Amino acid sequence: MFHLSLIGIGAGNPDHLTLQAIDAIRACDVILIPLKGPGKDDLAEARRAICARVIGTQGPQLREFRLPVRDPAQPDYRRRVDDWHDDIARIWERELHAALPKGGRAGFLVWGDPSLYDSTLRIAERVARATPLELSVVPGITAIQAMTAGHAIPLNEIGAAVAITTGRKLRQEGWPEGIGTVVVMLDQGGAFEALDPEGLEIWWSAYAGMKEEIRLSGPLSRMAPQIMKTRAAARRTHGWIMDIYLMRKTRHSA
Amino acid sequence: MFHLSLIGIGAGNPDHLTLQAIDAIRACDVILIPLKGPGKDDLAEARRAICARVIGTQGPQLREFRLPVRDPAQPDYRRRVDDWHDDIARIWERELHAALPKGGRAGFLVWGDPSLYDSTLRIAERVARATPLELSVVPGITAIQAMTAGHAIPLNEIGAAVAITTGRKLRQEGWPEGIGTVVVMLDQGGAFEALDPEGLEIWWSAYAGMKEEIRLSGPLSRMAPQIMKTRAAARRTHGWIMDIYLMRKTRHSA
Ligand SMILES: C[S@@+](CC[C@H](N)C(=O)[O-])C[C@H]1O[C@@H](n2cnc3c(N)ncnc32)[C@H](O)[C@@H]1O
Ligand SMILES: C[S@@+](CC[C@H](N)C(=O)[O-])C[C@H]1O[C@@H](n2cnc3c(N)ncnc32)[C@H](O)[C@@H]1O
Repeated sequence: MFHLSLIGIGAGNPDHLTLQAIDAIRACDVILIPLKGPGKDDLAEARRAICARVIGTQGPQLREFRLPVRDPAQPDYRRRVDDWHDDIARIWERELHAALPKGGRAGFLVWGDPSLYDSTLRIAERVARATPLELSVVPGITAIQAMTAGHAIPLNEIGAAVAITTGRKLRQEGWPEGIGTVVVMLDQGGAFEALDPEGLEIWWSAYAGMKEEIRLSGPLSRMAPQIMKTRAAARRTHGWIMDIYLMRKTRHSA
Repeated sequence: MFHLSLIGIGAGNPDHLTLQAIDAIRACDVILIPLKGPGKDDLAEARRAICARVIGTQGPQLREFRLPVRDPAQPDYRRRVDDWHDDIARIWERELHAALPKGGRAGFLVWGDPSLYDSTLRIAERVARATPLELSVVPGITAIQAMTAGHAIPLNEIGAAVAITTGRKLRQEGWPEGIGTVVVMLDQGGAFEALDPEGLEIWWSAYAGMKEEIRLSGPLSRMAPQIMKTRAAARRTHGWIMDIYLMRKTRHSA
């Protein structure tokens, strides 16, 4: 029997760890750390740093393993992701049994919060179908909150709704009907360019909550080119980028 | 000169405190704790408990003060809230000057995350218009995350959008166009009854993350009456309730 904890660790600021996350990490027998391959493992490095900080001499063992990549030959997006999750679930299972031949407590450190645009829960559900598993989830500070805290802005307008969406969806479907505030994640860059910028304000954060944090905000029409330029330069400098933004209809145009 | 920290403390589970929140609390000269009046101060009690846990003998002083209530004579909702925030801002200012006659660091402990359906940021902005103020925001675990963690469910479907809205708005406007997942907060009870339950699934949490936590989930048509009954009973037992829910269109009907 395995106990599996999916532990949210915040979106890059190690001080965003909660007391619950620290306890959950310390209670594990093993922490499983997936690797994506050379040049893509800044997140693995962040996880190692958190473990080093939190785990004493008696703490869980760290176990790193390689993840497969998505099959580019599968043209259907949903299908490609589903197949990939199936592959990863088989690897998790193998790792669990190898690390804990008599069962025990394993933990995964999840970037941000495990509920938000993250596949860990879906993979854990697949594992649970094949292997007896007790699952627990520890929430973490999301990139959304790291962004709003950095800009010191509310997520919502008073009594109003907010949509959270992806760059891909924003490009495909435009501004969500009847919603005043939209948060965009998983944008490969500049999905806001698909919108009519008139009457929209943007708050943009790259590396939110991290020491590299960059923030820009203002009317979308004016900020869009500046964000694109800043994003490209930051990506060149750091070799990778994670960014997120919030857009709001300005009051008079709403 | 004042420094004001709005510190997210999580939505009821004291272990949801982040390391950053603990540091921010300890760095304050005074923590201001607003009181709403007899019988409404469970939140003040939760804040006192957090301070007692985090603050050592050298920590900030706690200063409690009474909040005004919203003027029921003002019929316009937005106006009523705006006026109320103006009143509160004046009181914050008075309290800041009284507590820190020479300036210094004051903190407010904010339920959940300061960005989410909370007026603290808006009040701080008002104060900053009248008094020189340096503002910082510390993110906290939201009720949304406490709910999804408890149910061990993802917030979003793969690559899909999520709307966060209020009970009032859901009743008035129905299901948001083009969105598969809706989170409802600030519901006085049963706003989901305004929807056609066909093809909808619900995950409901009361007191999410707290020792009183109650969770129910299933098809909305079947769960709606049970949630209403459970909610009314819990409210009678505890004297107060805070609940939140997520609804999703089931795959085949989406
Ligand atoms: C796979 S999702 C994971 C989200 C994560 N579970 C969370 O709770 O924030 C990755 C996306 O989150 C956003 N993101 C994560 N960390 C970020 C950070 N520190 N700064 C800006 N955006 C970030 C970006 O939009 C990125 O494309
Ligand atoms: C004024 S809003 C504050 C939200 C808070 N800032 C946050 O980040 O969660 C209050 C609403 O949040 C939700 N809420 C807050 N704490 C909760 C809890 N522990 N369990 C369930 N719902 C909660 C309820 O919907 C409640 O009506």
